[in-house]
Amino acid sequence: MTKTIAKPRTRAGGRAARRQMRTARDFTMLPGLTNTLPHCELMDGAQVERIDAASMDILENVGVHFRDDIALEDWRKAGAKVEGERVYLDRGLVRALISTIPSDFTYHARNPANNVRLGGRNAIFVPMTGAPFLRDLDDVRRNPVLDDLAMFHKLSHMMPALHSSAHHIVEPYDHPISQRHLHITYSSMKYSDKTFMGMTTSPKNAEDVMEMCAILFGEDFMETHPVTTGNCNGNSPLVWDETMLGAMRAFCRRNQPVLCSPFVLGGANTPASVPATVAQLNAEALSALAYTQVIRKGAPAIYGHYLSTVSMKSGAPMAGTPEISQMNFMIGQMARYYGVPWRTSSTLGGAKTFDAQAGYESATTLSAVMHAGANYIWHSAGWNEAGMHCSVAKFIVDAEQCAMAYRMAQGLRWDDFDTALAAVPDVGPGGHYLGHPHTQENFQQAFFMPEMFDNNSIEQWVAEGSKEITERALTHARALLADYEEPKLDEGRNEALLDYIARREREIPAADELNQSY
Amino acid sequence: MTKTIAKPRTRAGGRAARRQMRTARDFTMLPGLTNTLPHCELMDGAQVERIDAASMDILENVGVHFRDDIALEDWRKAGAKVEGERVYLDRGLVRALISTIPSDFTYHARNPANNVRLGGRNAIFVPMTGAPFLRDLDDVRRNPVLDDLAMFHKLSHMMPALHSSAHHIVEPYDHPISQRHLHITYSSMKYSDKTFMGMTTSPKNAEDVMEMCAILFGEDFMETHPVTTGNCNGNSPLVWDETMLGAMRAFCRRNQPVLCSPFVLGGANTPASVPATVAQLNAEALSALAYTQVIRKGAPAIYGHYLSTVSMKSGAPMAGTPEISQMNFMIGQMARYYGVPWRTSSTLGGAKTFDAQAGYESATTLSAVMHAGANYIWHSAGWNEAGMHCSVAKFIVDAEQCAMAYRMAQGLRWDDFDTALAAVPDVGPGGHYLGHPHTQENFQQAFFMPEMFDNNSIEQWVAEGSKEITERALTHARALLADYEEPKLDEGRNEALLDYIARREREIPAADELNQSY
Repeated sequence: MTKTIAKPRTRAGGRAARRQMRTARDFTMLPGLTNTLPHCELMDGAQVERIDAASMDILENVGVHFRDDIALEDWRKAGAKVEGERVYLDRGLVRALISTIPSDFTYHARNPANNVRLGGRNAIFVPMTGAPFLRDLDDVRRNPVLDDLAMFHKLSHMMPALHSSAHHIVEPYDHPISQRHLHITYSSMKYSDKTFMGMTTSPKNAEDVMEMCAILFGEDFMETHPVTTGNCNGNSPLVWDETMLGAMRAFCRRNQPVLCSPFVLGGANTPASVPATVAQLNAEALSALAYTQVIRKGAPAIYGHYLSTVSMKSGAPMAGTPEISQMNFMIGQMARYYGVPWRTSSTLGGAKTFDAQAGYESATTLSAVMHAGANYIWHSAGWNEAGMHCSVAKFIVDAEQCAMAYRMAQGLRWDDFDTALAAVPDVGPGGHYLGHPHTQENFQQAFFMPEMFDNNSIEQWVAEGSKEITERALTHARALLADYEEPKLDEGRNEALLDYIARREREIPAADELNQSY
Repeated sequence: MTKTIAKPRTRAGGRAARRQMRTARDFTMLPGLTNTLPHCELMDGAQVERIDAASMDILENVGVHFRDDIALEDWRKAGAKVEGERVYLDRGLVRALISTIPSDFTYHARNPANNVRLGGRNAIFVPMTGAPFLRDLDDVRRNPVLDDLAMFHKLSHMMPALHSSAHHIVEPYDHPISQRHLHITYSSMKYSDKTFMGMTTSPKNAEDVMEMCAILFGEDFMETHPVTTGNCNGNSPLVWDETMLGAMRAFCRRNQPVLCSPFVLGGANTPASVPATVAQLNAEALSALAYTQVIRKGAPAIYGHYLSTVSMKSGAPMAGTPEISQMNFMIGQMARYYGVPWRTSSTLGGAKTFDAQAGYESATTLSAVMHAGANYIWHSAGWNEAGMHCSVAKFIVDAEQCAMAYRMAQGLRWDDFDTALAAVPDVGPGGHYLGHPHTQENFQQAFFMPEMFDNNSIEQWVAEGSKEITERALTHARALLADYEEPKLDEGRNEALLDYIARREREIPAADELNQSY
């Protein structure tokens, strides 16, 4: 009789299969990359000094607008000439100030195994942030909600080459804009135990992030350990505004690093020249980097930028263009000249869908920043439509691209060279290596096999449903999410975080701010 | 009365508009590129010598199969040890032989303005060849005919960054395989006056190409001037076959360069190790390069390869993987070590459609070969589906990618640096540059504006029909073809070529060979 009672094979099989896949697939984060590629340097020493001199001339003679009373007062005290909101920065003062920025530091995650080093040859990949739309698991373009953000934080957690869950990868429209930063920060902290970024959308928001970091890491720990990073965009040409400067103070006072990021639309807010654009951008970055040291001497800070060229016809930002590569090479040289860690962007691009344009743009930029020797490679996954949407499909593929760039930049494996060579006489002319023991043992280590690229014959591809990469990546994303395991927060800290959010929500007026983007 | 007779405005307007567009768009070929990028070199001098020593050990101790009686006899006469079809090459002999290969040379086109230099820092972009299918102007995948090949030759002629019309970009299935090379060669010669490639599908076919080149350029001219290039693939590991060796002799005897191209499926026909794969590939290339000098001392020759890694699951070739970039960097070093011009491939990839996979693969490979310092950058436009089809849409986009890579590799423009900087105080903090005279005058020279990338807002993109890059590129291809103007062949030579083809068609049995691929 008993043999007629069938086991629930399908469900158990499904579970077992999933468990097996989980065992097979390794979600462990790759350590922070040591990029061994030679730096692509387009400038000789004299040209680097020419850019430096041009930037210093701009700072001394044109000056920079700091549209913020506290910053102006800080600069006066620091010895700069201040006229109205314009600050003239002497090159001696700038050099003295930036000299105290650490050339590298450890960026701490709540899981210490996921700490990463920044600066020198150390590099990390950070997903995109700031998208007011997403293309979701069905490739539908729509406004995101907090659950969508959680999904991206989960995916960031699971993709080995991503070193951060960033912050508002997409904007959660189901929360009022004034309270959104609280939920974004909590989501970054909760769904991943990698490093994350802190919101800088206002000085008060930045203070909230600092408070939440203090709950998660402890106030004392923060004093001596970077645990988050905040981005502060400049308004090129040569303007820093109150929002960004206030947020910068919130971070620097707590010893947390900011990315000092001029926002460059080459040709629109810079001169129509690659070297002159770099000279202006460099002046802007230096002015903010110097200010971080006015706020707190010795605080870590990162040379940053958003970098595009613009279409002369429409004013739209362009990506994947030759000058963006060249500027990345040059800015890398400048950041190294000053000995400051350097943030750039990887996958910038303007495609509206995940079509070939998106692939060309992303791969071109990724390659350029690897050869340029960038440290903090932001917008490394998901960016599309000039940042207007984050694409789930592209997020998955970009993250694999990061893994491939990682492998390329790791350098060559020479340790088994002689063993590998010994296979040549074994196989001999006209033979093949697939059955050779060395191949069997070393293939996977020797050659990266991208999962998101389909390299089968067209017959097999058709038999499998003629799926283009978007569909394959979305299927993969669903499979990953089914396997997601939350790296639980410490219960006490979790409760303290939730209490903090609840209290701040009571304090911060929500008003009528749903469905707005920053 | 007369005013009721309307002028045929539409047609005249269309013609005028077309004429204007033709004036506006410049089809002039960009001169051969001088690649100023620093070479990405992963190996130090000792590692280069380690690869060289390993390759020489393979040549001396494992040997290479030359499956061709004439080659075996040639090698015996040249002093090599020959056992059966296996040739053992002493390193001293190899070094002596390859030392007479010119380190650079001029590759002549029938329009001398389109001559290009090869070797050293000189580089050219050559479209893909050999596709048994195409994706046509309607993105339909089908067998090509001679008119399709003519279309690609016309497009090659019109795209400024392509320096060659190659040869059988697609295979013309409407001609029998035994006579196809005649029509392919004529098409290359007729529809473009850039450089072109010569068929090497058999020794006799190669002789026909030589005869046709002699008609076009004159026999004496050919004796001292390279006017075409032929590709000879090796069968890795360590085999050269009769077809390729016979074709090689046809070219070398006439002083025409061959690309000595081991056909590497990394891990399948090479060891599972990047440096060991390069060592074997290098041995293979050296053995063929050495043989070119046995055939004719001083004949130009090119270090070549087809380079992929294979999927361990399916054996399918993979592209855009990190090891292909690394191997390109290494092989570039080896070719420079021997002082021989170097051919690689650009846009290899396995995507079945022109989706994002194709974009990532192509851009990654293109970037790698630019940083690697390649001279002869083959398969630079159109390649998809592991070479099984040439895509019209991708051809157009790839050719623009070449133009962007060209611009990137040209280096920085410093001549107007001071003038450009002078705009900074003019504009000042918070201003914009779009109206500044320097911007107006220099924008187009300063920043490349890709035509195939859409960077408009999504609203505008939707208003224009939500066209992805494939559709935009096909529209562009149609517009280009409407503007095509044939660079007429000299009448006498044209007739001589047609006579030659007619005679050879009478001599070569056609048999039942339609609809076969090589």
